[in-house]
Amino acid sequence: MKIGMIGLGKMGSNMRERLRRAGHEVVGFDLDENLRDVDDVESLVQALEPPRVVWVMVPHGTPTRSTVEQLGELLDEGDLIIEGGNSKYTEDRELDALMEPKGIGYVDCGVSGGIWGLENGYGLMCGGREEDVEKAMPIFDALRPEGPREEGFVHAGEVGAGHYAKMVHNGIEYGLMHAYAEGFELLMAKDIVTDVRGCFQAWSRGTVVRSWLLDLLVSALGDTPGLKGIDAYTTDSGEGRWTVEEAIDNAVPMPVISAALFARFASRQENSPAMQAVAALRGQFGGHDVRL
Amino acid sequence: MKIGMIGLGKMGSNMRERLRRAGHEVVGFDLDENLRDVDDVESLVQALEPPRVVWVMVPHGTPTRSTVEQLGELLDEGDLIIEGGNSKYTEDRELDALMEPKGIGYVDCGVSGGIWGLENGYGLMCGGREEDVEKAMPIFDALRPEGPREEGFVHAGEVGAGHYAKMVHNGIEYGLMHAYAEGFELLMAKDIVTDVRGCFQAWSRGTVVRSWLLDLLVSALGDTPGLKGIDAYTTDSGEGRWTVEEAIDNAVPMPVISAALFARFASRQENSPAMQAVAALRGQFGGHDVRL
Amino acid sequence: MKIGMIGLGKMGSNMRERLRRAGHEVVGFDLDENLRDVDDVESLVQALEPPRVVWVMVPHGTPTRSTVEQLGELLDEGDLIIEGGNSKYTEDRELDALMEPKGIGYVDCGVSGGIWGLENGYGLMCGGREEDVEKAMPIFDALRPEGPREEGFVHAGEVGAGHYAKMVHNGIEYGLMHAYAEGFELLMAKDIVTDVRGCFQAWSRGTVVRSWLLDLLVSALGDTPGLKGIDAYTTDSGEGRWTVEEAIDNAVPMPVISAALFARFASRQENSPAMQAVAALRGQFGGHDVRL
Amino acid sequence: MKIGMIGLGKMGSNMRERLRRAGHEVVGFDLDENLRDVDDVESLVQALEPPRVVWVMVPHGTPTRSTVEQLGELLDEGDLIIEGGNSKYTEDRELDALMEPKGIGYVDCGVSGGIWGLENGYGLMCGGREEDVEKAMPIFDALRPEGPREEGFVHAGEVGAGHYAKMVHNGIEYGLMHAYAEGFELLMAKDIVTDVRGCFQAWSRGTVVRSWLLDLLVSALGDTPGLKGIDAYTTDSGEGRWTVEEAIDNAVPMPVISAALFARFASRQENSPAMQAVAALRGQFGGHDVRL
Repeated sequence: MKIGMIGLGKMGSNMRERLRRAGHEVVGFDLDENLRDVDDVESLVQALEPPRVVWVMVPHGTPTRSTVEQLGELLDEGDLIIEGGNSKYTEDRELDALMEPKGIGYVDCGVSGGIWGLENGYGLMCGGREEDVEKAMPIFDALRPEGPREEGFVHAGEVGAGHYAKMVHNGIEYGLMHAYAEGFELLMAKDIVTDVRGCFQAWSRGTVVRSWLLDLLVSALGDTPGLKGIDAYTTDSGEGRWTVEEAIDNAVPMPVISAALFARFASRQENSPAMQAVAALRGQFGGHDVRL
Repeated sequence: MKIGMIGLGKMGSNMRERLRRAGHEVVGFDLDENLRDVDDVESLVQALEPPRVVWVMVPHGTPTRSTVEQLGELLDEGDLIIEGGNSKYTEDRELDALMEPKGIGYVDCGVSGGIWGLENGYGLMCGGREEDVEKAMPIFDALRPEGPREEGFVHAGEVGAGHYAKMVHNGIEYGLMHAYAEGFELLMAKDIVTDVRGCFQAWSRGTVVRSWLLDLLVSALGDTPGLKGIDAYTTDSGEGRWTVEEAIDNAVPMPVISAALFARFASRQENSPAMQAVAALRGQFGGHDVRL
Repeated sequence: MKIGMIGLGKMGSNMRERLRRAGHEVVGFDLDENLRDVDDVESLVQALEPPRVVWVMVPHGTPTRSTVEQLGELLDEGDLIIEGGNSKYTEDRELDALMEPKGIGYVDCGVSGGIWGLENGYGLMCGGREEDVEKAMPIFDALRPEGPREEGFVHAGEVGAGHYAKMVHNGIEYGLMHAYAEGFELLMAKDIVTDVRGCFQAWSRGTVVRSWLLDLLVSALGDTPGLKGIDAYTTDSGEGRWTVEEAIDNAVPMPVISAALFARFASRQENSPAMQAVAALRGQFGGHDVRL
Repeated sequence: MKIGMIGLGKMGSNMRERLRRAGHEVVGFDLDENLRDVDDVESLVQALEPPRVVWVMVPHGTPTRSTVEQLGELLDEGDLIIEGGNSKYTEDRELDALMEPKGIGYVDCGVSGGIWGLENGYGLMCGGREEDVEKAMPIFDALRPEGPREEGFVHAGEVGAGHYAKMVHNGIEYGLMHAYAEGFELLMAKDIVTDVRGCFQAWSRGTVVRSWLLDLLVSALGDTPGLKGIDAYTTDSGEGRWTVEEAIDNAVPMPVISAALFARFASRQENSPAMQAVAALRGQFGGHDVRL
């Protein structure tokens, strides 16, 4: 199958490569001349034969929106756009509403797998109309890990459901990582435990907590014993925030994932304003010393 | 009434003073020669007439235990010990079990009010047998704030119940302070809000959130505009931890007070080990930069 | 001063009454014929003399928006709208942007005090331009509690800042209430504590946790001993959600207020889907019994 | 190797079987006549040759303590006790202090794997002196999963470290399960997502959140579509509580694991007393309806 791919960053390039290894023909465009196969989106569209399929893999927000809008001008009825970036599901629904009257199909696809996806395959969650998803299935099958389709791919629901599932996936990821992290901190704090990495590694096979993230933590503890010198400063990329916002919108209690998110916020503060207030209050009522 | 007081630190001295102002006679002992009225506990006991009442106001743990044990040797049947420090309620129950066979009464009394208590009176929560509490009532009435007795004093239950109530009081205090603190941080973070102190002050009279802690925060914001330069580092004195431990023992969900406690722990960390683990994990799977 | 008031529900009626007691003339409109002074908004506007001041006190969202838009048609340059309902601050900024080109002033005013405000006065937080706030000051002075203006009123910042401060106020309120609530639950759970209401009441005067909410809890425990029979089901009115959403937008850690919010969500669930998943998982790996 | 095993419940029986399959000789005792090989502990000890190794696998607390104390009377210098149950690490340290003067070795061993351990092997974490751990290594090698020893076994540190690591393992497990559970609840709540089980299943191979727990959740969702009818009521077995208590003792912030623990407590409440208090407070200040 022949497909266009817009956006050839860390993820996009690897996906192009995995698709090519699977025998698909990929025409890629990127702002970076060194990465692209064609020099503009027009050429990319011209290089494909109808019904065209174009995978969009650019940063979410304005870049995604303007790319899709541009494609809306260039593509024809029956063509298909796959938004594979990290768009919020509400954005998908707005973009689909723009494409639908033109007869251009729209599928949103959440992609998980990071830098390991090229070799292992990507976990794919997509949303859209049945016929559009079907049209792109050879692409999905090439990108997903080997094995049964349903273990690496889902048609989660309507347009937006793919990115929604990916958002929830990332929210869960926040919670999982922080659970291991709290365990790490406690083991490190306890004097009678002398082999913390060994503990994590011993959980690799027979235990309830075995997982890929566990394997990665063992690996990280091998690379950097005791994680000595690693800065706690941690950014967040949006999906964690959206997950908690969606929880609020849907009245879903979410103490674990929100705690993991808040810990990231806190990791970026030199001096917590909230704790300044607590310290100041204690100084007021208790005569407790306040450090300046 | 005549009463002995052991422990004349910040709290004890003020309480001696408030009792004297109310017309009680207080014989005080402290390790510090400059504060004490008599030179040892023996002399203190001899200076009282049976049935004697001795208020113990020394640091919790070993100092309290050894003081009560010493009093157990010196006092007679019918005398009364009031443990007014910050003992854990389990300690009260152990000490009472030592005194009870000797016929020495034991009342535990949680005291709130900090440095303001001398003028405003202290909130008192006590536990013990009815007759022992009655015996000490003139003391309690002098220490508590003016007004109806029940608004500044409670006989909460059996031995230990006083310190239990005080422990819960302090746990609540953690939660209250942190609620204001989170609000402070959010107001400070928002550009359109230009008078944060003014907001807190405007809540002083008519609003649902008015409280003494609010008044103190307004005062702190007056003393140190924006709390600029105040260190977020905040210690904790035990009752917060005990409250959460009791919640766990009694299967009581306690997300708010535990969150306030954990924030104190975090305020004392230069680099969160848990967030080091999260940062390291992200480096492993996503190729996200890890700051060293 | 003469003022129009649109919306005469529980809050609006009381505010009209308080304004009248202070000597202001109030022309009120409501959908309910039994409450209103005039039969439509047009008549209300005609009853005022320029520069007119109209207080809008209707449910937030569409009712507020359509009322303000209608006033935008009826009012003249130099008139002033005060949005005193529970609008989100973003809505204020949108509505102000509609009024500003017409020369109609816009002030948003958060109002706290509930059913007690008629007698005690209302805590007021407003946002807007200096000259607009000044124009309405006699109204604010009549509504706020007696005493120094700054203890019951703040001009918090730009348009939107008033409702922002009110939103944070309500978020704090969630946290405060839940801190007391957790303490209540723990005291109730402990056998040695026999007078739970007495404990709360004893905190009324001398303690760090004294507050109006504490007084209300004492009162509630008097009305309904042990709160026996009260349903835990608790709704939420929006500001708590907005507060946590704003925390997320501003990367402010907010564990306490979010926990209080999530507890409300949970109070409305018969069977927690999340805990169904935990129970099902335990059944899978441990052979733990799963209750059906 | 020949080994005694005391306690042949769900776990003990399976472990005996796995040891036998590996060629070890196991003499088992249990209170249940149908399960045991010998009729009392004395016979068990007599059936072994010095230096004897006895694995204790009975409920933690009094049963474990009295079993170890009994073994302390029956065993000789140079013999070894392995406490493989769920003892708290502090209990291990007390029991070791009783055995050590007798020259009886003591190793604590946390065992993970549940009902799957018989086939897959058990994750093992042990604490004790080097020579004692070495002595039992053939047993550990038979019980742990196949593959490199360090991926299913760790000598974590001193006596107590094994159960400490197991305790942390279980604490992490609480957090992991709840992270998936929150994601499940949110996906179920969202109308545009129509294949929730499909989402979880699609994460099985290529994604960051893949794990054994995820596989189990997919399986549970296959057994009981939508988890319909499963009761949210969930017990807790101690290690989760201990983990949070240890976090408190070591001043380690633990928002995620504590939240998961509190959610279990809440799952067992018909009517949350804390939320009764919140509901009652709202009734007091806002005239909000309180449901009785």
